[in-house]
Amino acid sequence: MAFGWIDEQARARRRAGLVRTLRPRPADSPLLDLASNDYLGLARHPEVTEGAARAARSWGAGATGSRLVTGTTELHAELERELADFCGFEAALVLSSGYAANLAAVTALAPHGSLVVSDAGNHASLIDGCRLARGTTQVVAHADPDAVRKALATHDGDAVAVSDTVFSVDGDAAPLAELAGACREYGAGLVVDDAHGLGVLGEGGRGAAQAVGLAGADDVVVTVTLSKSLGSQGGAVLGPARVIDHLVNAARTFIFDTGLAPAAAGGALAALGLLRREPDRAARARAVAAELYARLTVMGLRAVRPDAAVVSVRAPSPEGAVRWTADCRAAGLTVGCFRPPSVPDGISRLRLTARADLSGEEIERAVRVIGETRP
Amino acid sequence: MAFGWIDEQARARRRAGLVRTLRPRPADSPLLDLASNDYLGLARHPEVTEGAARAARSWGAGATGSRLVTGTTELHAELERELADFCGFEAALVLSSGYAANLAAVTALAPHGSLVVSDAGNHASLIDGCRLARGTTQVVAHADPDAVRKALATHDGDAVAVSDTVFSVDGDAAPLAELAGACREYGAGLVVDDAHGLGVLGEGGRGAAQAVGLAGADDVVVTVTLSKSLGSQGGAVLGPARVIDHLVNAARTFIFDTGLAPAAAGGALAALGLLRREPDRAARARAVAAELYARLTVMGLRAVRPDAAVVSVRAPSPEGAVRWTADCRAAGLTVGCFRPPSVPDGISRLRLTARADLSGEEIERAVRVIGETRP
Repeated sequence: MAFGWIDEQARARRRAGLVRTLRPRPADSPLLDLASNDYLGLARHPEVTEGAARAARSWGAGATGSRLVTGTTELHAELERELADFCGFEAALVLSSGYAANLAAVTALAPHGSLVVSDAGNHASLIDGCRLARGTTQVVAHADPDAVRKALATHDGDAVAVSDTVFSVDGDAAPLAELAGACREYGAGLVVDDAHGLGVLGEGGRGAAQAVGLAGADDVVVTVTLSKSLGSQGGAVLGPARVIDHLVNAARTFIFDTGLAPAAAGGALAALGLLRREPDRAARARAVAAELYARLTVMGLRAVRPDAAVVSVRAPSPEGAVRWTADCRAAGLTVGCFRPPSVPDGISRLRLTARADLSGEEIERAVRVIGETRP
Repeated sequence: MAFGWIDEQARARRRAGLVRTLRPRPADSPLLDLASNDYLGLARHPEVTEGAARAARSWGAGATGSRLVTGTTELHAELERELADFCGFEAALVLSSGYAANLAAVTALAPHGSLVVSDAGNHASLIDGCRLARGTTQVVAHADPDAVRKALATHDGDAVAVSDTVFSVDGDAAPLAELAGACREYGAGLVVDDAHGLGVLGEGGRGAAQAVGLAGADDVVVTVTLSKSLGSQGGAVLGPARVIDHLVNAARTFIFDTGLAPAAAGGALAALGLLRREPDRAARARAVAAELYARLTVMGLRAVRPDAAVVSVRAPSPEGAVRWTADCRAAGLTVGCFRPPSVPDGISRLRLTARADLSGEEIERAVRVIGETRP
């Protein structure tokens, strides 16, 4: 029978307690959210939602075609100029998701015969980019510039190193300056995914590359997402104009996808405007993360010192993590629950996101609930 | 130098006349659009844009997280119920793009050890799905059920055949009933991409599977896009509930991507409502395509008889296609231009889309301009 093997896999998942189910939330959920990636609390900010609504009315609900056919509006062009300018790069290219942006950047910049050096902790979309790329991938130890150097030394020809700037699971930052140094020794390019850095790291949230003086470098390409700090949907690739031109001509997830919906472009543009006007949001997100970390570790919980706005707290087991998450929820708090197979090291965690707009009282309540429900 | 090889590729593209550039359009473009995939003319329909705007205001500009964390709203659940019901399937899963939906369906349904039989004319997103899948892919001749049968006969184990329902470049339909028959002989599943069929084929636009009595079959999975006939953004997978549950647990482009923006979900939901109320839009799109085809071939142009709403007209060369497209544009008409490397057979075409809302006068004008500018 077609798809018969699915049932056996489903049984195995049930036995292992690893079944994932969707839990639709209402528009007016009373839960305190420490699980979303809405780091700056902009997804429901009236300026951002009005930016989205206005764009839908002016430009239509969809982009109507590939960016190369009818799918590029002046709104897309404006967003690209603004993203590039804000983050300090020559050019930007907007795609329908961060996942698509990562597939585009990695596949277009790792041609046949080239080497891709990929951090062992990279996001699924970078991994899939490596798998789709025509170059050969070598996975190296997590956050280890020497390992990158060693891999690059083995290869004679074009090469690129690929890494998250802030790793999604533990919230730790990549040693970006050292990675760039390693790449430069070998004339290799550096492609980094700043999904969790944009809006949180760098001056006024200009991102991880800006924070270490790599913005605008001719050998650095940054991907970002519009769906986290910018509260919208979509992704973008930032880099030298010649690299962006190359992507327009070569990146399949750009060429063969419908352009980003105008509402998403309009929402992200409004969020960028807000971030320019209120640059303190970035520092506030980092401060909330530091406070959550300090207070949870004082209680004896094992957490990873946050480099951005993600706080990862260790759980005793997958079942323990699921129960802990459910108990938090019953007490009015949503936290993320990361467990196998989403975590490559097999360690289950609660994943907390430190929104810039959390009040002191909300932080207080979150810490209390997490402590009271610990397994 | 990092990315140095890009410049050589750029020079080669310029020499070959194959440079692609973005052309941002204004909100009030005076051009007659026969290039978008807005088959039913719904992208700018006030009900659809208001559906998008309202959703942004009620639910936020973004979904804020993975569908498995905070990214599933009741709006997503409603859209999934409505899509499944409209197309006649047990369940549906909405993703951020049709590209992501195809990657999800193919990778999750072609595990290690399985065979994927893929039509040679399939869309880039299906091809990338095959390349990411752990199963082995065998590419077979275009629209050839016997070739599928032959490929399935060579394999002992789980298998799936993958095809577009309507091929994007030439607008020709796959022999869907025959493909399903071939799959059934071998107990294989059938995964079809109905991006260009939803809203155009089947009763009231219910899609290609419904048109041939395959909707709801337990061995058929259909992917659709929300960005063509539904005028919005996003993609979905339709199929038996057990298959959809499997995707929730196994599809990386579902699990590791931010949920579709509420505005896109709201726009697509409004478009589905319209399509239910005005089922004639589907037949009208097909009739416009038939009329375009008839009138262009009478003029001696070589076109492919349209099975849906895409009319493909042969151009003499890549340069001829580019010039023809530019001349149409200068005369007020936007048409699609498909040329290498986007067309696997190397044949350049004008690609016309037959919008349901084109008036007789607009069809008249389009035909005249295409004829007058022919190379």
